[in-house]
Amino acid sequence: MLKGIAASAGISIAKAYKLESPKVEIVKKEGDPAKEVEKFNAALEKTKTDIEGVKERASERLSAEELAVFDAHLMMAGDPEFAAQIIAMIENDKVNAEFAADTVASQMVAMFESMDNDYFRERAADIKDVTYRLKCNLLGLTIPDLTSINEDSIIVAYDLTPSDTAQLNHFVKGFATSIGGKTSHSAIMANSLEIPAVVGCGDIMSAVNHGDTMILDAVEGNVIINPTEEEIKEYEAKAKAFAEEKEALKVLVNAKSVTKDGHEVELAGNIGGFKDVEGVLKNGGEGVGLFRTEFLYMDNDHFPTEEEQFEAYKAVLEGMGGKRVVVRTLDIGGDKKLKYFTFPEEMNPFLGYRAIRLCLDRTDIFRTQLRALIRASVYGKLCIMFPMIATVKEFCDAKAIYEEEKAKLIAEGVKVADDIQVGMMVEIPAAAVNADNFAKHADFFSIGTNDLIQYSMAADRMSENVSYLYQPYNPSVLRLIKMTIDGAHKEGKWAGMCGAMAGEENAVPILLGLGLDEFSMSATQILNARKMVNSLSKAEMEKLAEEAVSLSTAEEVLELVKNRVSK
Amino acid sequence: MLKGIAASAGISIAKAYKLESPKVEIVKKEGDPAKEVEKFNAALEKTKTDIEGVKERASERLSAEELAVFDAHLMMAGDPEFAAQIIAMIENDKVNAEFAADTVASQMVAMFESMDNDYFRERAADIKDVTYRLKCNLLGLTIPDLTSINEDSIIVAYDLTPSDTAQLNHFVKGFATSIGGKTSHSAIMANSLEIPAVVGCGDIMSAVNHGDTMILDAVEGNVIINPTEEEIKEYEAKAKAFAEEKEALKVLVNAKSVTKDGHEVELAGNIGGFKDVEGVLKNGGEGVGLFRTEFLYMDNDHFPTEEEQFEAYKAVLEGMGGKRVVVRTLDIGGDKKLKYFTFPEEMNPFLGYRAIRLCLDRTDIFRTQLRALIRASVYGKLCIMFPMIATVKEFCDAKAIYEEEKAKLIAEGVKVADDIQVGMMVEIPAAAVNADNFAKHADFFSIGTNDLIQYSMAADRMSENVSYLYQPYNPSVLRLIKMTIDGAHKEGKWAGMCGAMAGEENAVPILLGLGLDEFSMSATQILNARKMVNSLSKAEMEKLAEEAVSLSTAEEVLELVKNRVSK
Repeated sequence: MLKGIAASAGISIAKAYKLESPKVEIVKKEGDPAKEVEKFNAALEKTKTDIEGVKERASERLSAEELAVFDAHLMMAGDPEFAAQIIAMIENDKVNAEFAADTVASQMVAMFESMDNDYFRERAADIKDVTYRLKCNLLGLTIPDLTSINEDSIIVAYDLTPSDTAQLNHFVKGFATSIGGKTSHSAIMANSLEIPAVVGCGDIMSAVNHGDTMILDAVEGNVIINPTEEEIKEYEAKAKAFAEEKEALKVLVNAKSVTKDGHEVELAGNIGGFKDVEGVLKNGGEGVGLFRTEFLYMDNDHFPTEEEQFEAYKAVLEGMGGKRVVVRTLDIGGDKKLKYFTFPEEMNPFLGYRAIRLCLDRTDIFRTQLRALIRASVYGKLCIMFPMIATVKEFCDAKAIYEEEKAKLIAEGVKVADDIQVGMMVEIPAAAVNADNFAKHADFFSIGTNDLIQYSMAADRMSENVSYLYQPYNPSVLRLIKMTIDGAHKEGKWAGMCGAMAGEENAVPILLGLGLDEFSMSATQILNARKMVNSLSKAEMEKLAEEAVSLSTAEEVLELVKNRVSK
Repeated sequence: MLKGIAASAGISIAKAYKLESPKVEIVKKEGDPAKEVEKFNAALEKTKTDIEGVKERASERLSAEELAVFDAHLMMAGDPEFAAQIIAMIENDKVNAEFAADTVASQMVAMFESMDNDYFRERAADIKDVTYRLKCNLLGLTIPDLTSINEDSIIVAYDLTPSDTAQLNHFVKGFATSIGGKTSHSAIMANSLEIPAVVGCGDIMSAVNHGDTMILDAVEGNVIINPTEEEIKEYEAKAKAFAEEKEALKVLVNAKSVTKDGHEVELAGNIGGFKDVEGVLKNGGEGVGLFRTEFLYMDNDHFPTEEEQFEAYKAVLEGMGGKRVVVRTLDIGGDKKLKYFTFPEEMNPFLGYRAIRLCLDRTDIFRTQLRALIRASVYGKLCIMFPMIATVKEFCDAKAIYEEEKAKLIAEGVKVADDIQVGMMVEIPAAAVNADNFAKHADFFSIGTNDLIQYSMAADRMSENVSYLYQPYNPSVLRLIKMTIDGAHKEGKWAGMCGAMAGEENAVPILLGLGLDEFSMSATQILNARKMVNSLSKAEMEKLAEEAVSLSTAEEVLELVKNRVSK
């Protein structure tokens, strides 16, 4: 038995599929530049086609957001600078293509890895993934095709790359890897695909042979290799209980999200595009609390036209069948860039030209999106919200542009819904502390906890040196949430939350107590959250929340919730 | 008569001193690499010596903070990479040294200027300033020595570089420049030196001849060349009135800072070192509200030793003669770096590893500073404050280290004052909204408005694209200030402010109304602030402040203050 980290809950019993990726050995050789360049160009083309193929196959199971990693890979493979450097080395040093590719990529990886920052480390991982594929193509090595798995299997691997996880089909009953943690890419994907996973198992590759029977206990984080009959029976029972519990949650798909004392809230899902609508409905989502439209822009080679956007919004609104859909207007900049638009160089991009700031500057881009949204409004129940609002003036300026476009469309004879709500994200401290004044103008608020925490604490959550300050349960953060909700209610408006916090089991009781009206989360979190809401009393949670905001530290808050809310 | 921007108030009548810097013309020539490298090295050495000389002469009049520009220049001139690139070009391209220097510097300037960011543009200006000096030295051209001015003069120039302004002596009665704005370097220096200045005058260099009589009206922003007798009489009277008004302020040097209805506050000065103490006392400062200790670290080639720091703190405490001195512990990182310490690469340094975050990680550096401070405490009235505190835990951790070092020193038999106060900067929104809980642990607060505004608005004030969001009068900012002051008073503690806002004429009435206890500003602002405090009623300002925090926009707040406070 091996111990690891339970990264995605579930229990499976199946045969091991040992993923052994080909070992790439690079030998420096002299080469004829013309031939090597030709070889390189062919391999690079094949690499791009391969990635596109993987993306295509993966798109059947993955959301737009999850597919974004392949756009990063395609951008990398298509980067003329990357190719030019490799070709220059082939020509100047008269070396073989794989040696040149390996050398150039290694330098880039070393540079990115030396930066003490998660964002750059992700870029380093992208380069490694793409270059590995490129080198295999140059050497004629075949990367195992996980989509070919056709019997129930548990994958055992040193690690799974984004390309690997994207290829997992329904025969894959789980995976166990040597490295990784709860927030590693493979863990996040396992959760999203609802596949049990145990990561960080150490030297599992030596312990398992291809075809061994395995028990994967991704509740406790155990892997049992070649189990006894008794163990198999024990875990079959456990797996059954786990499945039943999961099944029991399904009863809640059509249930109301109402507390023991009769207070009703809305539990909604976050989506990146139409593809995610089904998941929200299947998991009992009562609406979409956040439609991230940036994927329409990022997964494209031009600013999407009004028509392209109209179709995308219409599809989601129709798909949700009259349930509320909150669409966030373009939230680009910071760490989210576009292939076809140059952002200014800034020393602190998180504090820079992004989201509504860009839209109020480049109103042409903004107006196109607003027109598409307004036109789509007749196909469902549309709410529009602006991201990164810091001042009342910004909100009013953005709203005025919306009103102008709406009036123009009506004058053009276009049908427009008369119940569109226009609200804003509350993710900047200035908006939270002045919420009552914003609520005089906005129809609703949606709290974006990731950014709100980041700015409140003045700490970039992607910088390892200060990531300890990313504290959702810090009383300062809770007070800002309280001010936002109170500000909305003072003016008779509703307040939601679309950050990671909205579905967390320690947060739901406090947020309920603070009076949050709408909770928007990953689709797979919704049923658990509903179970929790149904089991709690609003009156008791109000007392809990009042106490929480009076405390001094995040530790005290978590202690309080754990003591007070019995599960 | 020419119109310009009044950048530093005052009126002068004197002869024009036309600053005509030598025109540098660079011709590309072939050169003997060995000789050119030798010539280059000699010119670079002379450049460093020149800058050191300017810094030395300037240090008689300028504060540590103002002198920092020369450290940037020396660092630039001493950068081995800069020299290496020029030498490589001389050797590879066999060109003359001045052509190589000009080409390398131009590339660097172009790169920095292309970045749409004030910080990088300042770096570009530094490179230009240093390279100009280097090229003059290579070509044997002499840069005019402004320190040689020995009769009353008004300098007329296209622009004044940091090196120029640093050399102005008491014969300089003002200056007028073609370019520049209210926040340009030359304007800031003129204010600090209390020299009248009109900037942005257009083509003044063609309009004035060396030796012309000039009237510089830096109240209205007018420059009169070769005035009539009548005009001279008129402006002599105006200059006299201006001087009298200024003199009248001096009566307030020893006056109390008390409102009409008897509420007393403290008006203090911000300093960068001992050199600035005299200015604070001369201008009636009742204490030092911010001693920025980072200059001890930045203006050095090693972490200052306990002994070096002890002497520096002792000098300031003794210099202030028992008046309160608030010392901020090391606030480094963000845009403030050290020559001898490598900071991690971060995507958003303003949201990164800096100030107390660094000190709690590198406690060796922190403990040295605390020991020096505690030892110096017997020489005056010491308050210590920690910068960039975001959580109660951080404050308690920092305070615990302070208590440990204090106990150790007492055990070693060192004499320690028994009235040291330990407080914190409030410059992160999380601290402001939870101020009442912080006040249970901290002896006092000092609000740092620059950072507080930046983080509250999630906008880097150095990024031009979003600098419009730097709004001190935004009601959100005022509410955070109110929460901070209320939090302090709830626990019987005092609250000060050491940001730029504390001395602004539109801010003083509101801050007084919000209950601020201590206002710390540039020494030259103190007497004006006292005059204002003496003329206001606390009770009326309370009503004004209450109204201000209820408003929606910064514009409304400024309108309110202007209407309500008659001057």
